[in-house]
Amino acid sequence: MGKKNKQFVEKITAMEDDFAQWYTDVVKQADLVDYGPVRGTMIIKPEGFAIWENIRDELDRQIKATGHSNVSFPLFIPESLLQKEKDHVEGFAPEVAWVTHGGEEELSERLVVRPTSEALFCEYYSKNIHSYRDLPMLYNQWSNVVRWEKTTRPFLRSLEFLWQEGHTAHATYEDAAEETERMLGVYADVVENYLAIPVIHGRKTEKEKFAGAKYTLTIESLMHDGKALQSGTSHHFGSGFAEAFDITYLDENGDQQYVHQTSWGITTRLIGALIMVHGDNRGLVVPPRIAPTQAMIVPIAQHKEGVLDHAYDLRDRLKDIARVNIDPSDKMPGWKFNEYEMKGIPVRIEMGPKDIEKEQVVLVRRDTGEKEFVALNELEERLPILLEEIQQNLYNKALEHRNEMTTVVTDMEEFKQTLDQKAGFIKAMWCGDLACEEKIKEETTATSRCIPFEQEKVADSCVCCEKQAKELVYWAKAY
Amino acid sequence: MGKKNKQFVEKITAMEDDFAQWYTDVVKQADLVDYGPVRGTMIIKPEGFAIWENIRDELDRQIKATGHSNVSFPLFIPESLLQKEKDHVEGFAPEVAWVTHGGEEELSERLVVRPTSEALFCEYYSKNIHSYRDLPMLYNQWSNVVRWEKTTRPFLRSLEFLWQEGHTAHATYEDAAEETERMLGVYADVVENYLAIPVIHGRKTEKEKFAGAKYTLTIESLMHDGKALQSGTSHHFGSGFAEAFDITYLDENGDQQYVHQTSWGITTRLIGALIMVHGDNRGLVVPPRIAPTQAMIVPIAQHKEGVLDHAYDLRDRLKDIARVNIDPSDKMPGWKFNEYEMKGIPVRIEMGPKDIEKEQVVLVRRDTGEKEFVALNELEERLPILLEEIQQNLYNKALEHRNEMTTVVTDMEEFKQTLDQKAGFIKAMWCGDLACEEKIKEETTATSRCIPFEQEKVADSCVCCEKQAKELVYWAKAY
Repeated sequence: MGKKNKQFVEKITAMEDDFAQWYTDVVKQADLVDYGPVRGTMIIKPEGFAIWENIRDELDRQIKATGHSNVSFPLFIPESLLQKEKDHVEGFAPEVAWVTHGGEEELSERLVVRPTSEALFCEYYSKNIHSYRDLPMLYNQWSNVVRWEKTTRPFLRSLEFLWQEGHTAHATYEDAAEETERMLGVYADVVENYLAIPVIHGRKTEKEKFAGAKYTLTIESLMHDGKALQSGTSHHFGSGFAEAFDITYLDENGDQQYVHQTSWGITTRLIGALIMVHGDNRGLVVPPRIAPTQAMIVPIAQHKEGVLDHAYDLRDRLKDIARVNIDPSDKMPGWKFNEYEMKGIPVRIEMGPKDIEKEQVVLVRRDTGEKEFVALNELEERLPILLEEIQQNLYNKALEHRNEMTTVVTDMEEFKQTLDQKAGFIKAMWCGDLACEEKIKEETTATSRCIPFEQEKVADSCVCCEKQAKELVYWAKAY
Repeated sequence: MGKKNKQFVEKITAMEDDFAQWYTDVVKQADLVDYGPVRGTMIIKPEGFAIWENIRDELDRQIKATGHSNVSFPLFIPESLLQKEKDHVEGFAPEVAWVTHGGEEELSERLVVRPTSEALFCEYYSKNIHSYRDLPMLYNQWSNVVRWEKTTRPFLRSLEFLWQEGHTAHATYEDAAEETERMLGVYADVVENYLAIPVIHGRKTEKEKFAGAKYTLTIESLMHDGKALQSGTSHHFGSGFAEAFDITYLDENGDQQYVHQTSWGITTRLIGALIMVHGDNRGLVVPPRIAPTQAMIVPIAQHKEGVLDHAYDLRDRLKDIARVNIDPSDKMPGWKFNEYEMKGIPVRIEMGPKDIEKEQVVLVRRDTGEKEFVALNELEERLPILLEEIQQNLYNKALEHRNEMTTVVTDMEEFKQTLDQKAGFIKAMWCGDLACEEKIKEETTATSRCIPFEQEKVADSCVCCEKQAKELVYWAKAY
């Protein structure tokens, strides 16, 4: 490896030395993101946005396949509208951006730049839902939202981010409950099967649920440093918003009823999760199913006659098999190797004069670094299989890591020691009291991540107060 | 036609009676849009958004095919950044929304909600372009923008709208000029071949060009009422923004040079154009290539045994041929006919017990109302051809209408008479002086739409001042 290549690699801090700095280095060096001129805002660059497009396209497909329609609601919410639901406004008002002037005039009512759009959808539903025949109303939108966060990090917590927000209205509590669960399932499918990140399915505690929700379902994942990341949430509102916004319908008997609502969202945070679950000290690792480029052809000794032609032919041959690209630039191959490892491209295809002579190529996996020689005429068969092997391996490695980083604890001493020594998920019993949840957070900085659907009884008493335990909870330090 | 159906139809004002009211009726009755709670904002409903998705997907494909990458830039622009380019800030500052507070604090610098993103891209380019190897930089984003308009109408002019904005930087003036023209060509392709709207290609006058541009290219189309609509613009900035934002690169000789830039955009306005070009007194007419539903199956006498089963079978059979839907609801067929005519679905497929017996269906065209009986086993062949016939017919009708509504005039009297009698495009010679352009606007309310690429000499002297004419201009009252 030449001097230049070394410099390139040295730009990244090792994750063992400083995980936060490693993260910042990767998002910059892999060309995912840059900082916007307003504090806490981000510019998502082509390589980052192409990953988002792939996540979005698959999720959009599943959202439509489950019967939802895309819509576009406005960016601005009048202050009075946000205030209609008490818990909701309390949750969001402290962290919104306020528009006070339009053109050269001061506005008579301040406008909120949407931090989320429940208020707007509810206002619409109250005017447009009349009869049981109008239900369910199943809307989704892809949009930007603004939350005036104090400390920010690209993808993980930013002043503005991209997301989708589903908003649905149903005839009964049970219908809304089914929807809440269905969409959590869709999120879990995309995160596990496309981003290759295993998740814990569960319910948020009362303290951690969404402002205005009856309850919140969540999928939680574990980052490489042992901190958790909430990866998608789905909220059941019961009829709380319907009562605040007067959203009623006439049922089949002609009786007036409140609707029952849900909302659910995932955000560009998922790109942060992807980085922190799969990345390593050589940079980003992108799972093949969402990688904008799945395989990069790097010609070797490309100045020799025929090499570039063969490389281009190969790209054309493979273009219906996988998302294949080629780098014909005059940089040294070693430099290119490093660059595409940094960018996390799943497979490198090397092809030089000797390979051409032997009618073969070299495939190099980003996840393990393993090399294999493949005969040219077997490549159409081998490449898709290899991509799937990488996808599965990334998932398995993440699952193994999560299992290693998950600890059952039964008292507070053990709780603190575990967090100090290796962090990760803590599985511990809880009495259900807010006081214990708050005490745990105060003493350990860990928060309750979720009450998992898959319950186990790992002890009889609450890890904190030692009273009768009610349920198992996953706890962790979290992003 | 039963009483109910009549009522349904009567909800729309006839376009001859009041075109503006007809437009408003159609956007509401065809379920495209609703009003947001903030004056001048709109909610794009499922049927409207699905049309936008189809326009977007085709345009996005062409933007990528011409080498551009999608990115996401922030919503907020610091006031100081907007002010860097003098003409640009003068053009936009009077019509922007201002964020003055974030969370509970007053901001030290006001933020603009982007009305367009030149300032943000320029700031980024000034930091990220160093060498000729970095050029061209070809970025695009799909986003929402806000302009504090005083009078608003759904799609045509709204406080917030959706669009794409391309921003590119090039090594030379000529490269940027080629790009400006290339993207106008992409817009013309999408508008003519997908929206079935014929356009005039040309250049804006100095008065009408984009704030900060060297020149602006435009495609102009003509609505049914004889008013013009600017349907897509592509701007060449020369090095004006580069000088204001200090965007330089080292050329191959090691000399520092300013970049040359372009920007180009189309918006949700195109949905307004679509309505006003193809719509009629029965409602919307959507060209097949961008219609979310291309054919709607309406079962006749669906209570009779086997009818619904056959209708569902038909939908399943056709689903790889066209975007086909079915309405199995218990509304009367006549009601359904009116509803899907209102929504502009290109083809209705009727299928009743007699049709099933005869192994045929009835196809009804939305554009002409013509009916044809087609044998079931010929439908896979016939339907795609019919959809293309409709697509072509819509384009031809629009072109014919535009030709009828285009008048060559040589003096101001004729100019005014023509506008009073039938509006439409006025082709007239111009001396090139701003004074004449302003006088024409004052006396006729018509504005210069473009200096067409295809020049003709229809007279020797300027239509206004009678001095030596410089070039042919299209004039019209415009949206």
